[in-house]
Amino acid sequence: MADSSALDALVDQALEGSRRAISRLMSVVENGGPEARVALARLYPHTGRAHRIGVTGSPGAGKSTLVTELAKVYRGQGKRVGIVSVDPTSPFSGGALLGDRVRMRDLALDSAVFIRSMATRGSLGGLARATADVVDVLDGAGFDPVLIETVGAGQSEVDIARTADTTIVIELPSAGDEIQAFKAGILEIADVLVVNKADLPGADNAMAALRAMLDLGQAQTVRHHGESVTIAGVSAEAGSEQDWATPLLKTSALRGEGIAELARAVEEHYHYLAESGRRQQYHRARVEEQLRRILRQELLGRLLVRLPEAELAAAVDRVATRQEDPYSAAETLIARVS
Amino acid sequence: MADSSALDALVDQALEGSRRAISRLMSVVENGGPEARVALARLYPHTGRAHRIGVTGSPGAGKSTLVTELAKVYRGQGKRVGIVSVDPTSPFSGGALLGDRVRMRDLALDSAVFIRSMATRGSLGGLARATADVVDVLDGAGFDPVLIETVGAGQSEVDIARTADTTIVIELPSAGDEIQAFKAGILEIADVLVVNKADLPGADNAMAALRAMLDLGQAQTVRHHGESVTIAGVSAEAGSEQDWATPLLKTSALRGEGIAELARAVEEHYHYLAESGRRQQYHRARVEEQLRRILRQELLGRLLVRLPEAELAAAVDRVATRQEDPYSAAETLIARVS
Repeated sequence: MADSSALDALVDQALEGSRRAISRLMSVVENGGPEARVALARLYPHTGRAHRIGVTGSPGAGKSTLVTELAKVYRGQGKRVGIVSVDPTSPFSGGALLGDRVRMRDLALDSAVFIRSMATRGSLGGLARATADVVDVLDGAGFDPVLIETVGAGQSEVDIARTADTTIVIELPSAGDEIQAFKAGILEIADVLVVNKADLPGADNAMAALRAMLDLGQAQTVRHHGESVTIAGVSAEAGSEQDWATPLLKTSALRGEGIAELARAVEEHYHYLAESGRRQQYHRARVEEQLRRILRQELLGRLLVRLPEAELAAAVDRVATRQEDPYSAAETLIARVS
Repeated sequence: MADSSALDALVDQALEGSRRAISRLMSVVENGGPEARVALARLYPHTGRAHRIGVTGSPGAGKSTLVTELAKVYRGQGKRVGIVSVDPTSPFSGGALLGDRVRMRDLALDSAVFIRSMATRGSLGGLARATADVVDVLDGAGFDPVLIETVGAGQSEVDIARTADTTIVIELPSAGDEIQAFKAGILEIADVLVVNKADLPGADNAMAALRAMLDLGQAQTVRHHGESVTIAGVSAEAGSEQDWATPLLKTSALRGEGIAELARAVEEHYHYLAESGRRQQYHRARVEEQLRRILRQELLGRLLVRLPEAELAAAVDRVATRQEDPYSAAETLIARVS
């Protein structure tokens, strides 16, 4: 597909809801490059309506079962649901067991549900970009909410979570305090905290430990969406709106227990975002980040077009043999085409 | 520290082994910017000697205990050992239990061991860059090997692992097949596979499952260090050297069992890299990636210097209100300063 009128037609068909067009458009935006740019430019005015819900947690926490159950709740409300999976262990992404696949079969056959899995081993930064663009496609095509499933604990997962309006962090029941340490790294991105597999021993243990951490957080501001907010307490910023108290819930996704309550908490967070003005504030911060990312990529592309291939290779050789450091080599290459 | 002669002196002191200078130099390179560039340029000719060993696995797999035990083996061989921790759950990074801290106290007091923990919540891509630069400092200061501990399963962790010469992936004993799915995403970066906590029930189970996966991999090429190699088998590439068969080992880091065997496997992999020519090949690929990353960042920096701040803010506003798509906005900004 080379000409932009064909791309325009593809976007129009996707906006009208053609599953085939949505799927092809996702491939186009995932691949990046000039075609992705043309398509995204046309798509863009139609985005920004969907509630983007991130679901993250460690492998085995039951993220996909929970996503499946949440999706069923939204379907019961007559909503069209998008699901994007960037978790290599997820049944949505293909790395899964038969039982999980059976569980979500009904969902996959529902024409008001669109499931897309992302390749997780792209280049640094590429995955966050591609995920955001694929979510934009679902958003533009009228899917709302869009659930984004990622495996927790990685930097790029945190970056992906930051593209969501609401982030659900799932924890597992725990026998000791080992889980505590893990939480230290991931608590800060949770808008809603869930202990899943509540039927297992250790669920109350995990709940108590998390509750204690949330209470501790009351006095402590953490970094969130690029600015300081307070967990489970009153904001420390002067003049700010009433702040969000991260709710802590217990679910058993496999048995469908606690899911309605979870959906309500997510809904409440969405209202909070809208009423406090934070949704726009976060959106603006994300846009600026995205703009910078695109600028970096574009500027490199322009440089490489003007640079003979042999010169880049020669610079790589000089650095690889330590005749020149990478920063000086970059300097030289930029000077060559300026 | 503003002038470059002070930076030069700092680098020289670090190269001579001053712990205080090493520590300050690490902060300088972590912070990035012009000072980091000056320092890294001077440091660069002295790097490239250390064996970089990545250690990754899910939270609770016992990564830091294993790193501690490996470090003891290397100390017994008279080597100076660097440890860089990018895992928020690690005792090295501070998010840990008293028992773990006690276990590595001797290590921390050893003047031939240098431990550095990285902040894990920086900007996208920044963490991988900063980690590589900090490892360069240790490398230049004569620490060899350098152990890099990351929590597995994230994209940026994979990127960090790719900066290592040898990557150890740690798995836990497993009761069922749930662990299988997880492995699907992380097997591909393992040069050495370890089932830790071998004293726990399920260790043989995990060993058998991993062995089956490795055997399956024999016919299957996977992506590794940016090019296709074969796990536990003969390479599919025409004319390539004999390939690396990922060894599978059992350890109990807490009891110090299996660590000598692990150190041997890591050593063998290093010899394999050198003899097959792959070490240079991987190094060249990493250098090219690094150059591109620096170019992107530098080019954006140059653009922003020439762009009035209000214009960037106005572009962000246009995109945030969906009057313009981000790619077109980037185009406009680039055109403004060209």
